[in-house]
Amino acid sequence: MRKKIIISYDGTSYAGWQIQPNGLAVQQVIEEKLAMLYAWQKIRVEASGRTDAGVHALGQCAHFDEPERPNLPNDKILRALNRLLPSDIRITGIEDAPPGFHARFSAKGKTYVYVVNTGLEDAFTSRWSWHLESFRNLDEARKCMEMLVGRHDFSSFTVERGEIDNAVRTITDARLIEIGAYKCLCFTGEGFLYKMVRSIVGTLSFAGTGKVPPQEFSRIFAARNRSEAYDTAPPHGLFLARVYYDEEAPSSFDLESLPFLGTLR
Amino acid sequence: MRKKIIISYDGTSYAGWQIQPNGLAVQQVIEEKLAMLYAWQKIRVEASGRTDAGVHALGQCAHFDEPERPNLPNDKILRALNRLLPSDIRITGIEDAPPGFHARFSAKGKTYVYVVNTGLEDAFTSRWSWHLESFRNLDEARKCMEMLVGRHDFSSFTVERGEIDNAVRTITDARLIEIGAYKCLCFTGEGFLYKMVRSIVGTLSFAGTGKVPPQEFSRIFAARNRSEAYDTAPPHGLFLARVYYDEEAPSSFDLESLPFLGTLR
Repeated sequence: MRKKIIISYDGTSYAGWQIQPNGLAVQQVIEEKLAMLYAWQKIRVEASGRTDAGVHALGQCAHFDEPERPNLPNDKILRALNRLLPSDIRITGIEDAPPGFHARFSAKGKTYVYVVNTGLEDAFTSRWSWHLESFRNLDEARKCMEMLVGRHDFSSFTVERGEIDNAVRTITDARLIEIGAYKCLCFTGEGFLYKMVRSIVGTLSFAGTGKVPPQEFSRIFAARNRSEAYDTAPPHGLFLARVYYDEEAPSSFDLESLPFLGTLR
Repeated sequence: MRKKIIISYDGTSYAGWQIQPNGLAVQQVIEEKLAMLYAWQKIRVEASGRTDAGVHALGQCAHFDEPERPNLPNDKILRALNRLLPSDIRITGIEDAPPGFHARFSAKGKTYVYVVNTGLEDAFTSRWSWHLESFRNLDEARKCMEMLVGRHDFSSFTVERGEIDNAVRTITDARLIEIGAYKCLCFTGEGFLYKMVRSIVGTLSFAGTGKVPPQEFSRIFAARNRSEAYDTAPPHGLFLARVYYDEEAPSSFDLESLPFLGTLR
């Protein structure tokens, strides 16, 4: 039976989702613990997509194929896995995957949230927010975010990783939600290019601090050229918030419903 | 000039406040950075009291005596120190200390907050909360907390560190504040014994989970004997929230005004 799991992780201590030669990956940790659970059988965990080193997840989605034995009920797998996993990686949900389900290929959309802290730097929130006190021009930032909604060529906002034959992607929703000093830049779309959200936020940060007016943001976006844009925003402000499958409507995104971030005000 | 500073730290990575032979202490990190700021002069930082390994602070208070040169304005000291310090230690305030001020001896009271997470375990909040889903008998926990208010012998709720000649302390306020699934056990008092709050919470956790009725809590408290009480609660749920000096009223404690914890709902 294929299982679908929802995963939340604090990415601070990890070299990203995907297994790699150097550094500990979240995928590796979960596969190791699954192997412990299933009598050291090798179990591959496939996620909706990779997240970079330092990036967090509130609702990463993945699947794995359960070995024939031991046959464990879902709630037992959930509890046992969470007991084995370090406290900065939590499985928040598990269910039998529908027929033909694949965490990556079946994904219909994703929401990313990038958190900017415009208040005082904080010993606790600095792990998962970008401290940028001068990010105060929220109206201008919102104007720029509106430009992103729709089907566009995002060549200006991606870091090329070999050849990209098509940088056209659809963003269905882009909004800035304020939780006190924390400004949450929320992007929902059908698919995202490599480092696309962090590239957008990198340039958006100059709009929010008044250094790049919306017309200039528009020009950079239309240039379809990465070298026109500003530096990529740091990874530690970024959360993969949710992955959508099938009939789920990406437009129903609601920050308050998110674990953890939903507890902030 | 003597300077009074307010410090917030995520204690996860530290061996507590006080410098010691093994492990990195918060005090040591701050003294090192002050030395860098003041041309490698040795500067002693004295806090209101030590915090144990893994315990956090939102409003630890300390003082140091500024060397004659370089003469730096307070806001510059604050910014320079925060640039030098790791992001899990933040100086949130600095001012010239009033005449005769001593962070430890002038302290009139303190508030500690212990956070219990009764919801799902969370990858982000597990650093600073004790996950105890069954802590649901809040009325009984509150009844027990009320017993603590006043002037009492807290021998049942301290871990002896050599001889204690007097375990009588005054708690002026004890209250349980709910922030959703997070139950904040707040204790304000004139002074606290070694591991007193964690000892109280350790036994209180059995009241909150329905295993120790208030009469039994009362009996344990009255026994004035540590061996009657339950295990000490783990350090990672505890925050030193505030230190009071002079005319400040400890009764004015307000969770919402706290940095970080005040951002939760």
